[in-house]
Amino acid sequence: MGKSQISIGLLGFGNVGSAFVNLLESQKSVIFAKTGLELVVTHVAVNDLSKDRLGLDAQTLLTDKAHEITVDPEVDLVVELMGGLLPAKDVVEAALQSGKPVITANKELLSKEGKYLFSLAAEREVDLLFEAAVAGGVPLIRVLRESLLGEPVEKIMGIVNGTTNYILSQMEEKAMPYNEALQEAQRLGYAESDPTADVGGQDAASKAAIIAMVAFGANVSLSDVRFEGIENIKSVDIAFAKRAGCTIKLLAMVSKHGDELEVQVYPAMLPKGHPLSAVRDSFNAVFVEGEALDSLMLFGRGAGGMPTASAVLGDVIDAAINLSKETYRDMGDLNEISLLQGGEQKSAYYVSVQVADEPGVLATVASVFGENDISIQTMEQEGMEKEARLVFITHEAEESSLEGVLTQLSKLSCVEKLGTVIRVLEA
Amino acid sequence: MGKSQISIGLLGFGNVGSAFVNLLESQKSVIFAKTGLELVVTHVAVNDLSKDRLGLDAQTLLTDKAHEITVDPEVDLVVELMGGLLPAKDVVEAALQSGKPVITANKELLSKEGKYLFSLAAEREVDLLFEAAVAGGVPLIRVLRESLLGEPVEKIMGIVNGTTNYILSQMEEKAMPYNEALQEAQRLGYAESDPTADVGGQDAASKAAIIAMVAFGANVSLSDVRFEGIENIKSVDIAFAKRAGCTIKLLAMVSKHGDELEVQVYPAMLPKGHPLSAVRDSFNAVFVEGEALDSLMLFGRGAGGMPTASAVLGDVIDAAINLSKETYRDMGDLNEISLLQGGEQKSAYYVSVQVADEPGVLATVASVFGENDISIQTMEQEGMEKEARLVFITHEAEESSLEGVLTQLSKLSCVEKLGTVIRVLEA
Repeated sequence: MGKSQISIGLLGFGNVGSAFVNLLESQKSVIFAKTGLELVVTHVAVNDLSKDRLGLDAQTLLTDKAHEITVDPEVDLVVELMGGLLPAKDVVEAALQSGKPVITANKELLSKEGKYLFSLAAEREVDLLFEAAVAGGVPLIRVLRESLLGEPVEKIMGIVNGTTNYILSQMEEKAMPYNEALQEAQRLGYAESDPTADVGGQDAASKAAIIAMVAFGANVSLSDVRFEGIENIKSVDIAFAKRAGCTIKLLAMVSKHGDELEVQVYPAMLPKGHPLSAVRDSFNAVFVEGEALDSLMLFGRGAGGMPTASAVLGDVIDAAINLSKETYRDMGDLNEISLLQGGEQKSAYYVSVQVADEPGVLATVASVFGENDISIQTMEQEGMEKEARLVFITHEAEESSLEGVLTQLSKLSCVEKLGTVIRVLEA
Repeated sequence: MGKSQISIGLLGFGNVGSAFVNLLESQKSVIFAKTGLELVVTHVAVNDLSKDRLGLDAQTLLTDKAHEITVDPEVDLVVELMGGLLPAKDVVEAALQSGKPVITANKELLSKEGKYLFSLAAEREVDLLFEAAVAGGVPLIRVLRESLLGEPVEKIMGIVNGTTNYILSQMEEKAMPYNEALQEAQRLGYAESDPTADVGGQDAASKAAIIAMVAFGANVSLSDVRFEGIENIKSVDIAFAKRAGCTIKLLAMVSKHGDELEVQVYPAMLPKGHPLSAVRDSFNAVFVEGEALDSLMLFGRGAGGMPTASAVLGDVIDAAINLSKETYRDMGDLNEISLLQGGEQKSAYYVSVQVADEPGVLATVASVFGENDISIQTMEQEGMEKEARLVFITHEAEESSLEGVLTQLSKLSCVEKLGTVIRVLEA
C-alpha cells in the first residue's frame, strides 16, 4: 500500500482548471470516505503570476514554470490542462519520465503524440488518462478502454463537437442562416472568435483519432484523419433534410470495413429514427455498435468547465487509487492498421446543383450520374430562374465515382454552381 | 506480476453462460494482444450433466457441483450466472472466501446480500464485479463506480427493465391493450411465462437498490425499495398521456432530497422532451444528473444473451488484469442513509376516476382534491354513461395528501371505480 495523501500538480488554471479545483475541494471528504485517499492540489502552474487566483488555497504553490512541477518530488500526480501541442508535450513527457501519472484533457496533444506518450507511460509503469479529451463529461474513454475491452466493436459514430452541433441545431430549429447561428454560438461562448478548428472539423478529427487508438488499438494520428466541416452547409440543405425526415449532424466516424479502418469526420444526413438525430444543442453523444453488445449510446455535456472538470476528477481519482496500490493500466500497443482510403468508401449522397432554369437541364444533369454508374434515388427541382436548384439523393456509390460526377457537372454550361454534397446514412 | 493464464470457473451455462463462452472464444486472441493475458474457461458447473454442451471445449471440466469449482485451487476467477438467491449466495461466498474474484450478473443476490458480499470481497482483497446485474450491456456500474466516483450525483432515473418497456412501447405505438402486449412480449421471449417479477416492478427494484449502493454508497437492500409495476396501466391512460405530449415509462428512481435518499420504482408520465421518453422497445437507458456533470444518459441493450455476455466479459477482463497485477477495487463502506418515506414525497399526479354520468359529479369529485389541499392543473371528462371517466392532472402534492383524496373518492357514491394513478414528471 502506497501513501494515502496524493499531491496534485495542476498545469493550467483556466476555466476547467479552476472548476477542477473547486470540485475537488467540495468533494474532498466524500472521496476520502470512499477511497481512503486525501487528494490535494499542492502546485499550480499559470501563465501570468500577477492575476488573482480565486479558489486557490493560500498554501498552494503557484509558479509560472510548469516544468518545475513535473519534476518536483513532492508532486505525486500531474494534471495537464494547458491545451495545445507545445509546451504541453514537453511537460507531459517530463512528468511521465519522472514516473508521475498524468491526467490530460488535451485532444490535440494525444491525436498528434498519443502513440509516443502512451508507450512512454507504459514504459514508466504509470497511468496516462484522458477522459476529458474526448466528449468532455461523457465517459466514452473509460467505457471503451475497460467495459468494451473484449467487445468486438464494429463502429463508433460520434457527435463530439458541441459548437457545430449547436450551430446545426439552431439552423434546423430556427431556420437560422449559418452565419447567424455561428454568431449566436460565439455570443454564448460555445464558439471561439476564430471558430475554424470547430466548424472546419479538425477538433472532431482529433477526437476521431483518439477514439481509433482506444477502441481499435490503431496507430492513428490527426494527420491520418480526413475531415470536412460544416461551413458549406446552407439553409436550403437543412430545409431539404428536414423535409426528407432527416437531420444533419457532424459525425466522427470510426468503423471497421473488413481489415481496414475508416477514421473520418463529415457532416451527414441522419434519419430521425437514429438515436443520434435527437441530440440537440451543444450536447455530445457517441453511438457504439458491437457484435455482442448490439448498440450503446452515451449522451451528455461535451464541453464546459464543470462537466470537463468532472471527467478530469474521475481520472484523477482512478490514477490516485492505482498509485496508492502501486499499479497502473497501460493502453496496450498501438498497431499499424490500414486505413480505408477516400475513393473506396461507399455512401449514398445528397448533391445539390444550382442550374440555369431552361428546358432539358434536368435530363442533362441526371445523365451525368448515369455515366458514372451512380443510380439516383430521388431527384427534386426547387426554385425558379436564377434560384433554380436540382437536388439528388443517390443510391450507394463509391466516393471516387461521385467525384467523377462532380467534376463533370462543374464543366456543364447549364450548371451555374455546385452546391453542398452531404453523405446520407441509413437508420 | 501474477500469472498470465487465468482459469475461469463458470457457474451456470444457460443463455448468458453459453454466449459468454462463445464470445470469449472468439475474442481470446484480441484480449491476449491487448492485455498479455490468456483467459480460459476451464471449469463449468451445470444443473444437468446429461445435456449436450455445444461450444464447450473437450478439455473443459464439467460438473454439477458448483461448490467444488469455487474451492478448486486451479480456478483463478469465478463467474456466477446461476441467478436467484440460493445457492448463488453460498457459492459466491465460498469463492470470495477462497480468495477468488467473482463476476456476477445476479441482481437478486446483490440487492439482498450486497452489503455482506461487498465487505467480504474487500476483506479478502478480491474484486466482486457486477456490471451485468443492472441494465445488461449498458455500462452503468463502471461509469458510476469509476468515472463518477467524485461527482456530486443528485439523481439517477433509469429504464432498467426491458420487458415492461417493450410492453409500454407496444401499448403506445400500436394502441395494444396490456394483455395483448404482454403476450407478444412472452412470444418474443422478452417476458417469462410468469411475468410477475418484471411487470410488478420487483426486477427494477432490485436494480434500484444496487444503483443506490454504487452511486450513493448507501446500504439499501431490496426490502427497502418501494415499488409499483405496470399491471394497472390501461389503454386509456396511455392514450391520455400521448395526447398530453407524454409517454409512460417504468422508472427506477434513486435521488437525493437533502440528507434523504429516494429509492423507488414507479410508472411515470414523462414529457416527450425528456431523453428517456424516446427509449422504445426493450432498450434500457439510465439518465444521471450531477452537480458538475449536468446530465448524462447511457442507452443500450438491457438484456439478451450476447449483450449481457459482453458486460460479463468486460468485468472478467478487468478482474483478470487486477489479478495479474495483484490488485483489486473495493466498493468502500456502505453507509446507513435515511430513506425518503412515501408520504413525504411530492409529485404531480395523473388520477383517473370512473364515475356515474350525472350532473354535478365533476364538481363533487373536484372538491375532494381541494379539501386535501391538492390543486388541479387540468381536468377532463371522457366517454359517456357507463364509460364516463374523469381525468385529473394535479399540481405537485405530497403522496399522503393524494392518498387522502383516493380514500375519500372511493367512498363517494358517484364514483364507480378508481382508475390508474400515475406520477407526472417534468422535463
